[in-house]
Amino acid sequence: MKVARFSLDGVIAFGIVDDDELVVLKGDPMFAGYDPTGDRVALRDVKLLAPVIPRSKIVGMAHAFYSDDEEREQAEPREPLFFLKPNTAVIGPDDPIFLPAQSHDVRVEGELAIVIGKIAKNVTVENAEDVIFGYTIANDVTARDLLERDGQLARAKSFDSFCPLGPVIDTEYDWTSLHLTGRVNGEKFQKGTAELYKHSVAEVVAFVSSVFTLLPGDVILTGAPDRAEKVRDGDAVQIEIPGIGILTNPVKRL
Amino acid sequence: MKVARFSLDGVIAFGIVDDDELVVLKGDPMFAGYDPTGDRVALRDVKLLAPVIPRSKIVGMAHAFYSDDEEREQAEPREPLFFLKPNTAVIGPDDPIFLPAQSHDVRVEGELAIVIGKIAKNVTVENAEDVIFGYTIANDVTARDLLERDGQLARAKSFDSFCPLGPVIDTEYDWTSLHLTGRVNGEKFQKGTAELYKHSVAEVVAFVSSVFTLLPGDVILTGAPDRAEKVRDGDAVQIEIPGIGILTNPVKRL
Repeated sequence: MKVARFSLDGVIAFGIVDDDELVVLKGDPMFAGYDPTGDRVALRDVKLLAPVIPRSKIVGMAHAFYSDDEEREQAEPREPLFFLKPNTAVIGPDDPIFLPAQSHDVRVEGELAIVIGKIAKNVTVENAEDVIFGYTIANDVTARDLLERDGQLARAKSFDSFCPLGPVIDTEYDWTSLHLTGRVNGEKFQKGTAELYKHSVAEVVAFVSSVFTLLPGDVILTGAPDRAEKVRDGDAVQIEIPGIGILTNPVKRL
Repeated sequence: MKVARFSLDGVIAFGIVDDDELVVLKGDPMFAGYDPTGDRVALRDVKLLAPVIPRSKIVGMAHAFYSDDEEREQAEPREPLFFLKPNTAVIGPDDPIFLPAQSHDVRVEGELAIVIGKIAKNVTVENAEDVIFGYTIANDVTARDLLERDGQLARAKSFDSFCPLGPVIDTEYDWTSLHLTGRVNGEKFQKGTAELYKHSVAEVVAFVSSVFTLLPGDVILTGAPDRAEKVRDGDAVQIEIPGIGILTNPVKRL
């Protein structure tokens, strides 16, 4: 099932994708179930919004992929490493990524994002799937020069508009089938599959839930395969994950 | 005015401190103003809660104090540095700080905390006071060994219970008069005044609002003067700021 959040004529609602239409829901399915209003709207008539607004946490996994098979075979096991992004960084499909005045090196990277559906603390690897509502696409935008200056990830990852999410949440996505492609102005810069993840989705959920309580609507960016790409005013970024969709965002200098 | 959030007989409400009583309010004064219900309750009868639950961000300032006058005079101006804590880390007065199994070196440090009252982006230093709702006390708990292992602040600062806040928000506190004292089991480990802040409260608000939009209820921990102290199961931590109160939390091994 593919869950979308959308606005139409000033009203914001959730819907289930059914071909080129949305079955409109009475509430947020994460909290209120899948009760339909009886209305259907055409997908082309709505503006899709970020399919989830985290009330608590956006967790980003750092250094989450091996660069190649050789590195994978030689690597020693390491604990996952994460950073936090504020919910004020979230934008939806087609919303602009704004380049802040403070940075001269803003980079984009596409990632598979886990959307948490249940209150979860100290989840085991075996039970991790139970607390996942679904998966969406994220673009983990970073001011690379500020990351280098600070030595810490927080500021570089936190600017308004630095966390595009969408276009939909797929509640049945099989993360092991991940094929991700990132493009700037149609040119491919990023390509990756699930094979080079350092940790499984279940291991990631178990690890972060050993630190803090996950709440419904929390989002975990599972990390970027391959490489990030510098963007400039006027660029258009597309992150594609077959089975979920394409997340497109223009880039604008503030 | 001193704003408290409290529970009594299973009901959670806000109140204004009036001597040893609370004037009960109809809603959260940050959003609903100071409309009284007409009820008064005795302070000793209620359980005080964290006076604010951040919906978006807890920002912590790192390396925010000079260690002494000499360092202050010789230092070159530097940009502020911050990290983020999740709202799931917030606890209230007298709630236990839980020592996680992953760490063997958990440290506490008392800090003055700014509570934001208005939506704010790119606030100027001149206008920063306008977006501040008030001030409370924070204990910025850190798993020091995990900070060293990760090289990043996120995990070390983010465990459940690692952000005690309270006991009240003072809406008229003058931060330049800050005198902070931290004690573990009655023994003083931390002492500081506003004179050694590297940046004024207005400069901090202006800086962080140049990165992201601040929302009502966001909290900024202004950083710890002096030093942090390692705590153990059974300890009791008190952070005192005259004019705001004393924030007390027991420490428990999970």
